[in-house]
Amino acid sequence: MKSVRVFAPATVANVGSAFDVLGFALESPGDTVVACLAGAPGVRITDISGDQRLLPRDPERNTAGVSVAALLQHLSRSGYSLPSTGIELRIEKGLPIGSGLGSSSASTVAAVVAANELLGRPLSRRELLPFAMEGERVACGAAHADNVAPALLGGFVLIRSYEPLDVIELPAPAGAWVSVASPSLELKTHDARRVLKRSVSLEAAVAQWGNVAALVAGIFQGDVALMGRALEDKIIEPERAQLIPGFFEVKAAALAAGAVGCSISGSGPSIFALSGSLEAAKAVGTAMQQEFARLSLGSVVHVSRVNPHGAAVLAQG
Amino acid sequence: MKSVRVFAPATVANVGSAFDVLGFALESPGDTVVACLAGAPGVRITDISGDQRLLPRDPERNTAGVSVAALLQHLSRSGYSLPSTGIELRIEKGLPIGSGLGSSSASTVAAVVAANELLGRPLSRRELLPFAMEGERVACGAAHADNVAPALLGGFVLIRSYEPLDVIELPAPAGAWVSVASPSLELKTHDARRVLKRSVSLEAAVAQWGNVAALVAGIFQGDVALMGRALEDKIIEPERAQLIPGFFEVKAAALAAGAVGCSISGSGPSIFALSGSLEAAKAVGTAMQQEFARLSLGSVVHVSRVNPHGAAVLAQG
Repeated sequence: MKSVRVFAPATVANVGSAFDVLGFALESPGDTVVACLAGAPGVRITDISGDQRLLPRDPERNTAGVSVAALLQHLSRSGYSLPSTGIELRIEKGLPIGSGLGSSSASTVAAVVAANELLGRPLSRRELLPFAMEGERVACGAAHADNVAPALLGGFVLIRSYEPLDVIELPAPAGAWVSVASPSLELKTHDARRVLKRSVSLEAAVAQWGNVAALVAGIFQGDVALMGRALEDKIIEPERAQLIPGFFEVKAAALAAGAVGCSISGSGPSIFALSGSLEAAKAVGTAMQQEFARLSLGSVVHVSRVNPHGAAVLAQG
Repeated sequence: MKSVRVFAPATVANVGSAFDVLGFALESPGDTVVACLAGAPGVRITDISGDQRLLPRDPERNTAGVSVAALLQHLSRSGYSLPSTGIELRIEKGLPIGSGLGSSSASTVAAVVAANELLGRPLSRRELLPFAMEGERVACGAAHADNVAPALLGGFVLIRSYEPLDVIELPAPAGAWVSVASPSLELKTHDARRVLKRSVSLEAAVAQWGNVAALVAGIFQGDVALMGRALEDKIIEPERAQLIPGFFEVKAAALAAGAVGCSISGSGPSIFALSGSLEAAKAVGTAMQQEFARLSLGSVVHVSRVNPHGAAVLAQG
């Protein structure tokens, strides 16, 4: 095998009440990475399209490059005999950067899965997670897993703890439809973190973990209405909403159009809503876009089921 | 039908990380209530055994009496034709009072279920919940549901919110065994509430709701080891443990004897531990009792599965 082409999907992290612990994968949009065996040993990024020249081509500063290099280093140290050539990555961005849809995670996961396939699949999907997390360290300063894990594994993924890493795969409820509206403005994750208060009342924390528990129950029971109620987030959303013009209006429009719940995707500015049918999710997406338009903000809307598979190998040859 | 005899089980609330939102039912011990149609209209308590004369016989101050009266009032207002006699309750306490095992809830639930059966079962189990909660208001000043709901419905029960009341029934994992050790000392719930800090760091709250989410996932997946890890509570347990002599030693003994997790039952002083087999749960119970004995504290130990059914009608005639 000389080349592998892999798609990895957009992901929604900080799922309403489940701030910092839960993420899920969409079916689309996503990023595609082609990995080839070529040239001298090491990792090279030969091309990035669709990024408006915003992403570093230097593999040591690019999340996909860093992750694949970490994977190669691990395999080499584990006694795996690497090919005499290096790995070249060609990244096709389908996801907007800084939109709260796990853009860097999608590229990173696609690259790591492609490289692993190219080398004969020495590691399982779950074993690839720590290397994909290395890319997140470059992208946002901390090795978060709530976007990379669902992009890699599909469905809803829960990160119980980081030390030790405890990652729990939850189902992808077939009846849950997601509408995501991404307004044309960029937010930096660290700006979105800076607005958060450092402490919360015990009462609010208890209400929040009741919602998080109910969200997980709704996911297992495939109860979309319960999932919607349980998205309620009285801690993070009110603070981060300040950074997203029109958030409350767009959320109200989504709920009025039939969504069972709505919150910020990742650290924003994208907004996601949950619905119980494709028709409802389409109507909700249209309502969110119209509300952004009323506020003179352009937006892109995607409607998708929860993706049960995560990254997908599209072609190899 | 003239008389109904109902058993309602002990319950563990404040399940580790899931403070104030989750409870589950044990198979034993529990309380038994006999309800009879007799005398003038209204509710009377004709006898209470096993309470060391600690509980009020006045039906307006007794949790079981208050709950049955609330049920009768509701049925009367709903146009249900009540019998011309009243309802007499005989309560047989099998649960120690103030031990953190939902003692008042067990009596209340048994009484409400018995009265409902006696009247021809006008309401479903779930419909009885608000009336059982009225008893909790008498017992602890607030209409909590985290003991009464599992005593009534069985399994693990999640209380997502109180306004509106949103109660979610979770499974009873067949592989989970519970050891409960009740030391011979009494704690008042309001004393146990008083030690709690009013605010928590966002970081601790996030870790806690990651654990709560994982606990619910473990319950659905029947993954007892995950349930055990997810009991970890860094917010409530460290503060309430101060009120329970030997808590940390007993917990360490339980874990050393094979428990996958251990925490305070309710607001204490009972301590519960989770294990993956009956043999392990027995060894854990013995270890907990020995540790209490080393501290010169007598204790009673119960080993039980999670009770999937809740209150049970034992006899009617």
